[in-house]
Amino acid sequence: MTRTLNPLKIAVVGLGRMGKRHVHTLLYRVPHAQVVGVCSSDGSEVKWARNNQEYTDFGITVYDNYDQMLNHPGLQAVWISSSTDVHASQSLAAIAKDLHVLCEKPLSTDLAEAQSVVDAARAKPSLKVMAGFSRRFDASYRDASAKIYEQGAIGTPFLVRSNTCDLRDETGFFVRYAARNGGIFVDCAIHDIDLSLWFLGNPTPKACWAAGTLQHHPELRELSDVDNAVGVVEFWGGKIAYFYCSRTQAHGHDVCTEITGTEGKLMVNVVPRQNNVVLADKLGMRHEVQPEYWERFEHAFALEAKEFIAAVREDREVPLPLEAGMKVMLIGQALQHALLSGEVVRFDESGERLN
Amino acid sequence: MTRTLNPLKIAVVGLGRMGKRHVHTLLYRVPHAQVVGVCSSDGSEVKWARNNQEYTDFGITVYDNYDQMLNHPGLQAVWISSSTDVHASQSLAAIAKDLHVLCEKPLSTDLAEAQSVVDAARAKPSLKVMAGFSRRFDASYRDASAKIYEQGAIGTPFLVRSNTCDLRDETGFFVRYAARNGGIFVDCAIHDIDLSLWFLGNPTPKACWAAGTLQHHPELRELSDVDNAVGVVEFWGGKIAYFYCSRTQAHGHDVCTEITGTEGKLMVNVVPRQNNVVLADKLGMRHEVQPEYWERFEHAFALEAKEFIAAVREDREVPLPLEAGMKVMLIGQALQHALLSGEVVRFDESGERLN
Amino acid sequence: MTRTLNPLKIAVVGLGRMGKRHVHTLLYRVPHAQVVGVCSSDGSEVKWARNNQEYTDFGITVYDNYDQMLNHPGLQAVWISSSTDVHASQSLAAIAKDLHVLCEKPLSTDLAEAQSVVDAARAKPSLKVMAGFSRRFDASYRDASAKIYEQGAIGTPFLVRSNTCDLRDETGFFVRYAARNGGIFVDCAIHDIDLSLWFLGNPTPKACWAAGTLQHHPELRELSDVDNAVGVVEFWGGKIAYFYCSRTQAHGHDVCTEITGTEGKLMVNVVPRQNNVVLADKLGMRHEVQPEYWERFEHAFALEAKEFIAAVREDREVPLPLEAGMKVMLIGQALQHALLSGEVVRFDESGERLN
Amino acid sequence: MTRTLNPLKIAVVGLGRMGKRHVHTLLYRVPHAQVVGVCSSDGSEVKWARNNQEYTDFGITVYDNYDQMLNHPGLQAVWISSSTDVHASQSLAAIAKDLHVLCEKPLSTDLAEAQSVVDAARAKPSLKVMAGFSRRFDASYRDASAKIYEQGAIGTPFLVRSNTCDLRDETGFFVRYAARNGGIFVDCAIHDIDLSLWFLGNPTPKACWAAGTLQHHPELRELSDVDNAVGVVEFWGGKIAYFYCSRTQAHGHDVCTEITGTEGKLMVNVVPRQNNVVLADKLGMRHEVQPEYWERFEHAFALEAKEFIAAVREDREVPLPLEAGMKVMLIGQALQHALLSGEVVRFDESGERLN
Repeated sequence: MTRTLNPLKIAVVGLGRMGKRHVHTLLYRVPHAQVVGVCSSDGSEVKWARNNQEYTDFGITVYDNYDQMLNHPGLQAVWISSSTDVHASQSLAAIAKDLHVLCEKPLSTDLAEAQSVVDAARAKPSLKVMAGFSRRFDASYRDASAKIYEQGAIGTPFLVRSNTCDLRDETGFFVRYAARNGGIFVDCAIHDIDLSLWFLGNPTPKACWAAGTLQHHPELRELSDVDNAVGVVEFWGGKIAYFYCSRTQAHGHDVCTEITGTEGKLMVNVVPRQNNVVLADKLGMRHEVQPEYWERFEHAFALEAKEFIAAVREDREVPLPLEAGMKVMLIGQALQHALLSGEVVRFDESGERLN
Repeated sequence: MTRTLNPLKIAVVGLGRMGKRHVHTLLYRVPHAQVVGVCSSDGSEVKWARNNQEYTDFGITVYDNYDQMLNHPGLQAVWISSSTDVHASQSLAAIAKDLHVLCEKPLSTDLAEAQSVVDAARAKPSLKVMAGFSRRFDASYRDASAKIYEQGAIGTPFLVRSNTCDLRDETGFFVRYAARNGGIFVDCAIHDIDLSLWFLGNPTPKACWAAGTLQHHPELRELSDVDNAVGVVEFWGGKIAYFYCSRTQAHGHDVCTEITGTEGKLMVNVVPRQNNVVLADKLGMRHEVQPEYWERFEHAFALEAKEFIAAVREDREVPLPLEAGMKVMLIGQALQHALLSGEVVRFDESGERLN
Repeated sequence: MTRTLNPLKIAVVGLGRMGKRHVHTLLYRVPHAQVVGVCSSDGSEVKWARNNQEYTDFGITVYDNYDQMLNHPGLQAVWISSSTDVHASQSLAAIAKDLHVLCEKPLSTDLAEAQSVVDAARAKPSLKVMAGFSRRFDASYRDASAKIYEQGAIGTPFLVRSNTCDLRDETGFFVRYAARNGGIFVDCAIHDIDLSLWFLGNPTPKACWAAGTLQHHPELRELSDVDNAVGVVEFWGGKIAYFYCSRTQAHGHDVCTEITGTEGKLMVNVVPRQNNVVLADKLGMRHEVQPEYWERFEHAFALEAKEFIAAVREDREVPLPLEAGMKVMLIGQALQHALLSGEVVRFDESGERLN
Repeated sequence: MTRTLNPLKIAVVGLGRMGKRHVHTLLYRVPHAQVVGVCSSDGSEVKWARNNQEYTDFGITVYDNYDQMLNHPGLQAVWISSSTDVHASQSLAAIAKDLHVLCEKPLSTDLAEAQSVVDAARAKPSLKVMAGFSRRFDASYRDASAKIYEQGAIGTPFLVRSNTCDLRDETGFFVRYAARNGGIFVDCAIHDIDLSLWFLGNPTPKACWAAGTLQHHPELRELSDVDNAVGVVEFWGGKIAYFYCSRTQAHGHDVCTEITGTEGKLMVNVVPRQNNVVLADKLGMRHEVQPEYWERFEHAFALEAKEFIAAVREDREVPLPLEAGMKVMLIGQALQHALLSGEVVRFDESGERLN
């Protein structure tokens, strides 16, 4: 019997921490995809990939030029996992080549540029273009959504509290990367904002405010950023979301979301745990916490890749429309503006930002 | 051998839900106090008290007139547990009679009036006058304080998240009572604000903002109030506190506080529990939550009463200076103003409110 | 108005760790009792008590002779908190004087001697004689009982797992005390056995077996005891209880009980906690555990004292009949025998021990 | 670039619940394996597989005859997932064909038959033959092992408590399957026994006893089995393990293990959770529990498959020697004998069973 699987030929651009993981996910969790190429503009990443026996075994061509990679024979899709500043241009180039695109969030820190990708994708409706809001694929968040929308477990949701708190990074990696990430509310809270839209029924922002502080990374001051921030978004229709973002947690990657409704509350990961082990000793009882988002969301990334690949192969809608990311970015930038200016940012009833 | 205990003669004014509990606390948990009188201006409460065999057994005189009660022979102290609007006048009357005073928070919803009590107390330094911030006496909050200030367990605290969320009251009691409580941030968040000052080292407010919504009690609109609200306070010196208050929880009285510092985080009651019982059945694993603050703070009220009585009998400082309540009220009112106006309320570096 | 309280005059014998606590409980939690005397045969305890200003203030006479204390004018009841070897004789002496008795568990490590107390009490039905199974007064165990017997929450209970695990005692106190406590299953598991009878509907034992080990206290070998032991009791009617007792826990006093029924499971204190505080730091998330049973059961002891006093003053049945302790002891001794002999101990259908 | 992966050609025998899952695991989690064949002696399973488009896509040949499957061209390994009674004969047949074998636990319920597989495997040391003790591959158990053996987190382990409690099966599937599984301690506790050997340093059994009950499946009486059982194993050297097995839990698949050592305790999955979601509503706070072992151990099965495949491809030792399963079975059968006879089963110091 012959294998008739015919996997989707995909390439990954960007071989940083996440790019490598995305390649791994495709190789080990998505048999309906075949990684035919990877690409990086970073010489050391390219060198690493070329010396990687596993990549050789799996027949992956390593490129140092994105355009050349787009010309890989038979290539059907691209997973864009480079730095945020080239997300839009690389997406546009892939769309121009009629390639399906899975692009890491956000499309751009510039709303107009992001809109250009949305427009380009809309012009080619047969292409699947998706922004990578990985938490949408997490089993717990999906269960929360099912409990809200299918089981009515909490009545009508009206309030979301959501945190993204990273373990303090002593290596300097985070600060180097901070220069081009758009600020703490754009980089760090983007998933929380997306979750609040998901769980509050896609409401329209009315006003927001934020406050921040610098506790461990004074060098962020030059970048007009902070390392810990709290923000509140009021939506039209009596809904509220509030967020806490941190770069400096001592105990691990602490990401939680609470959704309060008229008849109950859902708590997702309010007590984060590395695994099922608890140690009881002289210090009491303790458990460890995941050090970073990968441990928390590894399986979500696998499902995201699977669903994207399936959407392409079976010509189904992608799980999350590209436009959704625009509103998330609008709110993230408003919170960042409020943080820096100390002013309330307001929106009209159509969601148009007023200041 | 003769009993030489010589308990402090104390009277309680106000026989609502809390007044009755305070009497009970004194009778059953504080042998160094002797309840000689109780008083209410509410006829049904007076009647209830006069028919109460236990009060008779313990030799308690029931008054319907506060001034008469103040003249009870040998009376040394008064616990004021009436409605907020008479806290200040009753405190002043007691102080005028040279009686020690334990007054339920807040002294007044009017800052000037509250100040008049502070001034009157200051004029009689031998009197012990204390505002009842009961959470200061809770074992868990005290443990958190010890971990912060004695053990340095979280480095320097810079962020407090604190919630006071009440079980939804279907009886109408809460709404009737709401008219004179000063609004959700004054009535409900007052303890959270106090905790944030405690755990952040008594910082000075810089700016605050808030957003609220009406989910279950539309009748609060007339009272210019909401039933759920989120507020953020930025303090001078890079410290932040944020609060969530609710009148409408489905699952119980949910009061939690998290204090984040440069080296760790303390979580107080983030998972509220009625007791140590968990039930595993077809619905999974569940535990119950305290229905109201009494179950959560019963032992704190007992300790509060004990420490107040001990301060009087041993002529020691009261655990919490009366002035502390003024700053709490200032911030509570600013948040309430922000909530209603939609504007940021700002303070100068001395903590003077600017708008 | 005069105080007509007329509290019950009670004396406490034994001023070790628990005796002192019982006096404290009576003074601070039970206004309907008046401690008129305390007694100890230990010279240093007597001296300590005579120098104790609080005892003087409360008018407590300190005795070094139990019989003299029994003659204290107006004495109505005795709380026996001495060492186990004199529980029975002191109970009999008090009963002979027509005094009500609350006796710490167990009445005796000798079943015949214990029976003599039961018989003496039975002969004076107007006296209230109660054995102190304090867990019967714990709010969580009572809630478990209500869930089982009133709410039918777990169907028919058929299995109990119960642990009593002490924090390791490095002071030598425990080992000194071990010589006369009857062995680990009599001293340590007695509450667990009692709970299993309570929650399984008072079943009759059929067979039991046990295994033990010495990990930290090799000196127990001379006393024919171990410091960790596991035992299983099979009851007639298809019910089972199993126990783990330990003297050597590193993390605290860990006492838990699980009751499994045909429709669910109740878990009591499966995750023991000192209070509501969790610390998140480099080690993960941790909470402390109570160091000893006092922190876990302080409020149960207060309720036990209150209910005993109320039973006397209001001439009501004591919450737990004295006979109940006999069956508990029978099972405890059978487990201890199984532990030492390695043999199964069997009972006939009337509960008579066969070997 | 060409793919040089050269995956291991493997076939799966048995297409029941687990067989299907193993095929899925190989297809989706183990790119270094290629499933070339599946086989079942059950006509409906064969039909299902032949109509399965996915199997066709992946190029899997469906056999109804095991010997024919063993002759599949190029076949290198077999995963035996049939019913226990044919594990040994199918393993022997595969070994005879020089095929590597991953066989579901247990090799056989007959010790001599199991030994024959061990002997056959030993005779061909180049073959990798492994018994599927899946919990050895679970991240939490591995973490517990690392904490014990690498970090010394609990000193010397001396006690294991381990439960395997299944959700009640109302479909009748379990009872049909029970006839040939060897009894509750062989089928259900086998992993717990294995874990106790792992965490106690492979001790030698000294004595064991057990008690059981029938609560939901009276039809098991004919099979000389029970649906709930507790067993204790004493090992030479002062170590103890005790187990609770159940077929009738109301709340889900509840599998937990506690390892107590001289300096601490490790708790694995003592509070089982389906995911990270908690629902707070009128019933309190609750989370769901995994319905069966698949949800708990899915990732362990993937790792087990990966490590087996890697051991074959890289000619490394399999993670668990085949012999290990023999001792587990010896203890399981002794517990089952104790359960049915009511007698203590004893072993000499070499682990030889004495009765």
